Amino acid sequence: MGEFELIRQYFMPLVRLHGSHGVVVGPGDDCAVQRVPSGFDLVFSIDTLVEGVHFPINYRPDYLAWRALAVAASDLAAMGADPSCFTLALTLPEVNETWLRDFARGLGEAAESFGLALAGGDTTRGPLTLSLQVHGLVESGGAICRSGARPGDLVVVSGPLGDAGAALDYLVADGSSESQRASIDEQCVLERYHHPQPRLKLGSALRHFATAAIDISDGLLADLNHILEASAVGANIERARVPVSPALARLKGDTAIEYALHSGDDYELCATIAQARWASAPPSLKQQLTVIGVIESAPGLRLGGTDVMSGSGIVGFDHFRGKA
Amino acid sequence: MGEFELIRQYFMPLVRLHGSHGVVVGPGDDCAVQRVPSGFDLVFSIDTLVEGVHFPINYRPDYLAWRALAVAASDLAAMGADPSCFTLALTLPEVNETWLRDFARGLGEAAESFGLALAGGDTTRGPLTLSLQVHGLVESGGAICRSGARPGDLVVVSGPLGDAGAALDYLVADGSSESQRASIDEQCVLERYHHPQPRLKLGSALRHFATAAIDISDGLLADLNHILEASAVGANIERARVPVSPALARLKGDTAIEYALHSGDDYELCATIAQARWASAPPSLKQQLTVIGVIESAPGLRLGGTDVMSGSGIVGFDHFRGKA
Repeated sequence: MGEFELIRQYFMPLVRLHGSHGVVVGPGDDCAVQRVPSGFDLVFSIDTLVEGVHFPINYRPDYLAWRALAVAASDLAAMGADPSCFTLALTLPEVNETWLRDFARGLGEAAESFGLALAGGDTTRGPLTLSLQVHGLVESGGAICRSGARPGDLVVVSGPLGDAGAALDYLVADGSSESQRASIDEQCVLERYHHPQPRLKLGSALRHFATAAIDISDGLLADLNHILEASAVGANIERARVPVSPALARLKGDTAIEYALHSGDDYELCATIAQARWASAPPSLKQQLTVIGVIESAPGLRLGGTDVMSGSGIVGFDHFRGKA
Repeated sequence: MGEFELIRQYFMPLVRLHGSHGVVVGPGDDCAVQRVPSGFDLVFSIDTLVEGVHFPINYRPDYLAWRALAVAASDLAAMGADPSCFTLALTLPEVNETWLRDFARGLGEAAESFGLALAGGDTTRGPLTLSLQVHGLVESGGAICRSGARPGDLVVVSGPLGDAGAALDYLVADGSSESQRASIDEQCVLERYHHPQPRLKLGSALRHFATAAIDISDGLLADLNHILEASAVGANIERARVPVSPALARLKGDTAIEYALHSGDDYELCATIAQARWASAPPSLKQQLTVIGVIESAPGLRLGGTDVMSGSGIVGFDHFRGKA
């Protein structure tokens, strides 16, 4: 069996979700074809993950696949888009059948879980790199952008923050994606790194409430600052309100909050919501969110009233400084 | 200026085509948003180019940008889709301002020439790799697939073939993308490698005539064979009819035809057309195409009646054997 044949064999089962996702021509032709229903906009984002930069060297292929699709799908959640399909450009140093089988299994589990059908892709030889483009749909004009935050809006976040950042510490120190030697708390935060959950249903629900949203990939402060800049507003955040998991609190003590403020990789959402809308939001929505601060007209990002801008901007993740 | 700021500065001018291409949210948010007109399908394809595999090491950045977008746009041409926009995932070992400026200039020229607006992207650190996804539109159900060829259809190709393959010989031997020492004929074939012209207008015109189409990226025989397999038919090609440029004929003599049959990288189109449709086609369309053979019901690909299948398939390009 040729190498391309092998790849086709492992990825073709992921195509089964097609019909229900508007994909009318799937992998195997020059292009894929998607039918976008009348009255809807196509929402899309491309993300690249490079071995040794965005994930550890020799990272487990099933975890890698899940993480890669989750990272991409999280951008759909931030726009309030409902997931439809994705393309995968996979660059491999060699074709290793075991690796490929595990990768395809992880990708299939993620695709099923997130409701994304594999529509097409490209496989090439080179240093291990993945580029994924995800496609979603929103009612025309309904996408949540970064630019809609207004003074007085509440700043909310989903889930506890910082777990995945603490997991990276462990992975870098341990040099392995296995966790046999990890404590229960370490296993908790590792799971959040290995299997991030893009907040797709929450994002979809936020479409009717949020004035702006972003997914937290680079750290809460850095990502919230993107909303502030795009909306030409400022914000004040109460440090004590930022949600931290019990596991992270036990592992990191007083520095847990620093992980929650500065580390990304959890792929939770940060959104802004007008106070009147928040008051009328259903409990099912409120239960998934924590109010951590308020949008203000004065530019800049403040923690308990103290400016956290430095000359070079918010401390956060810069891909060109490298990581993992 | 930060590295991301630098990248933004060079790429933002490429966003100017937006409005006219249905891009309602461009780069700078979590996702881009495209409005697909009612009655049209979205046609899309992702392609990756890796340094040292798909293009020579230290290849000129403006040529690289043109070539990368042309390779991707050529897939739209093969489906008969009209171009709308693209995303670029760019992985760079370092941020070199001169390189980036030249790359952005080449990309801008290509984007303008092909009618593709930059809708979004991702920039990461790592070995030089580009993944581009192009988006096009066709009337719903109108995309030309590989599976429609029927016995009796004529096999046609655009442009002369094999020039870019001969150029690669030169580039590999010379080790540089400059061509000061190249003869006039060598310059002709080099230009075809450096600046392939995706046959977008031709593809769009073929939508009303072709039963199947593919772009020639891996070599005429290998790519035609994809049509034959998808359509469950065979074909007989007349070697003497395959168009070869005067420059290639002079450079390669009797072996010029081998380049035309086996080497890709020209990004011309191969299509099948029912004979009655061909008879009624306008001269403007016929002038861009050469009839090289006919589709037959017996499976397999024949050159002048002689089978050209081997046990391992058609000789052509396999990414996992490497190239360039």
